[in-house]
Amino acid sequence: MRHIVFLSGGIGGARLLHGLAQEIAPESLTAVVNTGDDLVHWGLRVSPDLDTVMYTLGEVADQARGWGLRDESFRALEMMKRYGEPSWFSLGDQDLATHLVRTARSAGGESLTSITQSLCAALGVGCRVIPMCDQPRCTWIDTVDHGPMPFQDWLVKHRAPAVAGVRFEGSAHATPEVHDALSRADLIIIGPSNPYVSIDPILTLEGVRDRVAQTKVVALSPIVRGKAVKGPLGEMIRALARREPSPQAIVDHYAGLLHGLVVERGDESAVREIPVLGTSTIMGGRDDRARLARELLDFADAVG
Amino acid sequence: MRHIVFLSGGIGGARLLHGLAQEIAPESLTAVVNTGDDLVHWGLRVSPDLDTVMYTLGEVADQARGWGLRDESFRALEMMKRYGEPSWFSLGDQDLATHLVRTARSAGGESLTSITQSLCAALGVGCRVIPMCDQPRCTWIDTVDHGPMPFQDWLVKHRAPAVAGVRFEGSAHATPEVHDALSRADLIIIGPSNPYVSIDPILTLEGVRDRVAQTKVVALSPIVRGKAVKGPLGEMIRALARREPSPQAIVDHYAGLLHGLVVERGDESAVREIPVLGTSTIMGGRDDRARLARELLDFADAVG
Repeated sequence: MRHIVFLSGGIGGARLLHGLAQEIAPESLTAVVNTGDDLVHWGLRVSPDLDTVMYTLGEVADQARGWGLRDESFRALEMMKRYGEPSWFSLGDQDLATHLVRTARSAGGESLTSITQSLCAALGVGCRVIPMCDQPRCTWIDTVDHGPMPFQDWLVKHRAPAVAGVRFEGSAHATPEVHDALSRADLIIIGPSNPYVSIDPILTLEGVRDRVAQTKVVALSPIVRGKAVKGPLGEMIRALARREPSPQAIVDHYAGLLHGLVVERGDESAVREIPVLGTSTIMGGRDDRARLARELLDFADAVG
Repeated sequence: MRHIVFLSGGIGGARLLHGLAQEIAPESLTAVVNTGDDLVHWGLRVSPDLDTVMYTLGEVADQARGWGLRDESFRALEMMKRYGEPSWFSLGDQDLATHLVRTARSAGGESLTSITQSLCAALGVGCRVIPMCDQPRCTWIDTVDHGPMPFQDWLVKHRAPAVAGVRFEGSAHATPEVHDALSRADLIIIGPSNPYVSIDPILTLEGVRDRVAQTKVVALSPIVRGKAVKGPLGEMIRALARREPSPQAIVDHYAGLLHGLVVERGDESAVREIPVLGTSTIMGGRDDRARLARELLDFADAVG
């Protein structure tokens, strides 16, 4: 039986996953999700990428905002402000339940993998969603002007000041579930996520890149018309790869891993050396995501 | 300068305190609040009596419900239900902020006394509100038919089944702040709270009862026309004191501590041996609470 492993960051990966989940049997799809962005906020364990993936697959995500739950309210946040607590990272009222469950069960010794499975079941998520690791592995951003800071501090609190480097701290290991999924995969899909801060945290876990390199890999380009679809990826490519953002910069970043790349129609000529599929990659609603997933799967069948 | 210490449980005590806070200078009033009902729920440290006192004095309490914040929503609770988490104890969305702050700061080593001071400041509470102790001291209810259970399990989850006894667990001590306030008090007021489960947890802390016995003490009867104004006190008096509920049962319970008792007008004859003031004791809004507080203070001046 076919088994697909999907490497995901937040919103872009979550949306493509949502499309894939409509196209293939749930038991054939495992999402391995970045946890390098995780933070403890208000004493709660928050896993932004896991939450975005769960909420999107559970069809309870806010579509316009791109994070959190739809029909969300922020009454606890308003009260936290009154108490003088930090308000730079917005946690919604319904969203708090997710973090409360994760925090309490973690404190009780349950693994993030197991907690995530339970949350996904409650949200009606069919495919398997697993964190890349169960121990903390924090993505640090070395900035040009303000020193090093954890990822969310950099992105949300300080609004992405110029980057000098990216590091991953903590001696976490990919879980047995990640290794098992990768060993069974006949296709690995890399979501349209930021390679530096969403995918590299997964690939740099011991043994993961070697395993991925043994499997057919296709990716969806997060760069469209020379710009990042979302977030600070464009600036990071300029700062860290010292080149202009382009789909080829993504291919080069993954250094031989990719067997094919899906890009926005018109960007095909920017990719050399590997097969490329041009199509409409800016995902709309449910059906549009399924359409893109189907095209990507057909492309993957045809390459390598 | 006059200094008053007020011993308080939840809503009744909170309302009389609210009246007192309008009648005397904030620096002359210290509320010592029961924490025997505290619980850990959803991993959060919840102090129901402290919260009711803070919210009432801060004029943000829900008046109709008798607990929690006004204009409250319960979206996190609904999500917790979806996750299969316990929903028998309702925590509102705004209210969660209070418990998040308390939990995070406690985990950081800050005392409940200090955290409460900070929360009160944010809520604009003028007088001093202090927990009876900083360490856990849990009120256990021995039930006739269902064994022992912590107070909130007994009251809220199991809806107050028949009581065989009340115990306090934990080796907590009254804080230096409690001892200091009591040593400076020229009047101690006992709120119209349940003596067994709201006031005894305070009085039975080592050294507290002896100190209270050296000071003038007046109380407001929680029994009106032979019934508890709120909660299961009537049944507890029948079960534990083996008598009918009455203001005299309250006087006898405190065994010589009281120098005067304020009762509902018409209940005066039920009190023997100590001075009694009959007035309207079922507190309405802000002004009515202040009126009762003024009458109680005048009465206290006149007795003992």
